[in-house]
This record gives sequence, C-alpha cells and structure tokens, in this order.
Amino acid sequence: MEDLTVNEIVYSGKAKYLYDSGEYFTMEFTDNITAFNGEKKDILPGKGKINNTINAWFMRFFKSSGILNHLIKVTSDNKSLVRKLKIIPLECIVRNYAFGSICKRLSIKEREKFKLPIYQLCLKDDDLGDPVVSEYEALSIGWATEDQIKEIRELSLRINNLLLPIFAKAGFILADFKLEFGIDEEGKVYLADEFTPDGCRVWDADTGEIYDKDRFRRDLGDVIPYYHKIADRLGITSSGI
Amino acid sequence: MEDLTVNEIVYSGKAKYLYDSGEYFTMEFTDNITAFNGEKKDILPGKGKINNTINAWFMRFFKSSGILNHLIKVTSDNKSLVRKLKIIPLECIVRNYAFGSICKRLSIKEREKFKLPIYQLCLKDDDLGDPVVSEYEALSIGWATEDQIKEIRELSLRINNLLLPIFAKAGFILADFKLEFGIDEEGKVYLADEFTPDGCRVWDADTGEIYDKDRFRRDLGDVIPYYHKIADRLGITSSGI
Repeated sequence: MEDLTVNEIVYSGKAKYLYDSGEYFTMEFTDNITAFNGEKKDILPGKGKINNTINAWFMRFFKSSGILNHLIKVTSDNKSLVRKLKIIPLECIVRNYAFGSICKRLSIKEREKFKLPIYQLCLKDDDLGDPVVSEYEALSIGWATEDQIKEIRELSLRINNLLLPIFAKAGFILADFKLEFGIDEEGKVYLADEFTPDGCRVWDADTGEIYDKDRFRRDLGDVIPYYHKIADRLGITSSGI
Repeated sequence: MEDLTVNEIVYSGKAKYLYDSGEYFTMEFTDNITAFNGEKKDILPGKGKINNTINAWFMRFFKSSGILNHLIKVTSDNKSLVRKLKIIPLECIVRNYAFGSICKRLSIKEREKFKLPIYQLCLKDDDLGDPVVSEYEALSIGWATEDQIKEIRELSLRINNLLLPIFAKAGFILADFKLEFGIDEEGKVYLADEFTPDGCRVWDADTGEIYDKDRFRRDLGDVIPYYHKIADRLGITSSGI
C-alpha cells in the first residue's frame, strides 16, 4: 500500500491497478479474481505474482516476434513497469473454439471448433455489459481510427498464429483470448493490458481439462495451482524472471 | 387465401409470405405489422399494398443503378414475383443516425449523427434476439463465404450512398435501414427481402417527424397514411406501378 502515498492511481481495475511512476506506469497484479462482470469475486493468494510472471513471459515473447507491447520491465513479484498509453476502449477477442459468452449469444455447442478463427470486438464498458460492436461502430463513434482498427485486427490474428503452436507444443489447446491495445503519443499501436490465464481459455489437448479462469467461473477449484501448471508446461516458471 | 390451395408456402414471416410459384416465388405483403420481435402486433389495412408498391419502386431503382435484386415483377396489389434464392441469414444494417436498438446497446443519444455510416451484421434469429455478429463469426460459422461477406458489405454501403440523395431531395433524412441478401444457384448475390418503411427509419429533414415503422413502435398513430406520404414525396405513388 506504500505506493498509494507516493504514486497516483491512474486506473483501478477488477484485478489490476495502474500507478503513475513518472516516465512510466506501474502495473500491479493483485490477488483479486472476479467473473461475470464483477458479480462473483474472491481473493486468491499468489495470483498477482503468477500472473505478473506469465504476463511478462508472453510480452517478451511478443516483443521478440516483432509485436510492440507496453512492458518495460518487471519490478517486483507482482508489479511491472509499462509504457504510458491511451487505451483503445475495445476488447479484441480471438476464438478458435466455442466457450463462454458466444455459446449463449449464438446458440453454439461448447467446445465446437471454428473452421476459421473468429475475431470480434467488444466495447470495454461494464455498465453496458461489454457489448459486441462492429468495426464501423468503433470508427464512426470514434473509439479508434481506420488504421488502428485494421492494425489491432491484424495484430490479434497474428498473435493467435504465434500462440497456437506455443500452446500446442505444451499439450494445450488455446480456445480463445482477449487483447487490449493502446496508443502512444506518436499514434503508434502497442499491445497493452495483460496476457494471462485470466483473459484466455486453455485446455489440456488430450483430456480437455480446464486450466484457465473458468476454473473460478465454474467452481472447479485449484485456480492458482492450475495457473502454475500452465506456466510450468510452457516453460515459464523454470526460466525465471 | 386461394394461393394456399395451389401454392406451397415456403416462408411465413411476420409481415410477408413466400409461395412457390414454379420458376419463381410469389412474395405477398400482408397487412400485419409487428415490432419488438413479434411482441407487439396489429393489422393495418392497406399496409400490404403500399409496401408492395414502395418495395417495387426501390427494387427497380436499385436495378437501374446496377444492383441485382430478386424482384421479377409486381403481380397484384400486394404480391410480387421474386427470384428463388437461398437467403443469407444475416441482417445488413446501415446507420447514418442513432435510433432504436443501438442507442440502448451502446448508450448513445437518440438522433445523434454518426461521423461515418455504421455497418453492422445481425444474425437473423428471433429466438436469440437477432444478435450482433462479426464478419468473422459469419464466415467461421458458415453463414456466408468470404466473397459474399465482402459483397454484401460493399452493396449495403453503396445502397446507402444511392439512397441518401433520393431521400434528401424529398426532404427526408434516411436514419438507417436493414437489408437482406440471397444467393442464386450460380452463387450470385442478389438483394432480397424488401425495402419499405418497415425496415428503415425516415424522418422529415426539417421537423424530425417520424414517417416509418417507429410510428407503430411508439404509438404515434397514422402509420399507413405516413407510409403513403413517404411514397408521395418520393414520387412513387404518382408514378403508378
């Protein structure tokens, strides 16, 4: 809590805080876990630490693959320094398999594999229930420019292509994931937010067992141990930070 | 009702019927009017006739502008012969001004003008409440091919560009409209369904007065007289059929 006395909170999310740390922001991963638009919540000790570790590993991997992202460096167990960006208020969702909201919305059987990856945008707005929006809505209402809309679409699908073999090699299916992007002062687009089991769906490729935040949503238990298993199987924790 | 004895109903909609008439379908515009996914309904004498007239005028205008559509010819006051098509189960919506569902979904003020026309797809599925879908969902789930998705988007926006001056010249604002498309046996895309005040929003350019189906939705009365006023001001009814 000492940060509160010296750093201004610039964003207070459901599981993360963002503090102003001068040139950069400090992103703090808390132990909070929430689901169903905040209706279900709990505190899971160790969550902030493992998510900070997993996020840093993915952001470095993205960087090495030529995808600009906001991570500057990890500064403690559950904190990282990130670039100051203006966040585009859109969730970019890529789905390889059906699960969660899309099943109800479109009456699709859970775990159905899509012929091609689905890309969709949702407006980041809890009060409105993060509604699905079209790219034209995003453009016309001014949430992003035409170039940005094209770039975040291409980046999201490229990230999917990069991630699928990474997860497959570790014996996982990457069913879906959510990304957020931000813009720097020059208008350059960066991947922002986080890539952790809070924002993706990861299943064992053989058994279908759930390893991601659905363990919390569906009361499957052992949420944090399973987050650690993802990290172990991807070779994240053994490589250190 | 004599059609029922000789022609098979191939589609029974909320305000239209489609009969098999051999080489073509017969599309019958009924006097039924419904709103809010069928929850509100009424019978308005003369609606079938004026909508058949308005629809034929627009379909001929579209054809003269190089846009293939399903109309073959008007065969009676409330019936037209149309090409047999496989309908793509998507509503293609173009919005120039905010009104109706988008205002609630995205918390936008009614009658706000969009900087650029908004194009969005909804799945035609009453049970699911016609949910907004992304083009990737349409493609991956198999509702349309990549080429068809591109073509119906381009046609929808082109139709908007064609219609805006037509309505403006008649002293109207075309706030939004909904289109449906179908595919013939060779895979060619045709504009299908209808273009009538049931599926678009038309306001007086000076007063903002509502001339379309919102007169029914909002209990403004005189629905059919206002449909006739649209036809008169556009020069439809005076030109005959």
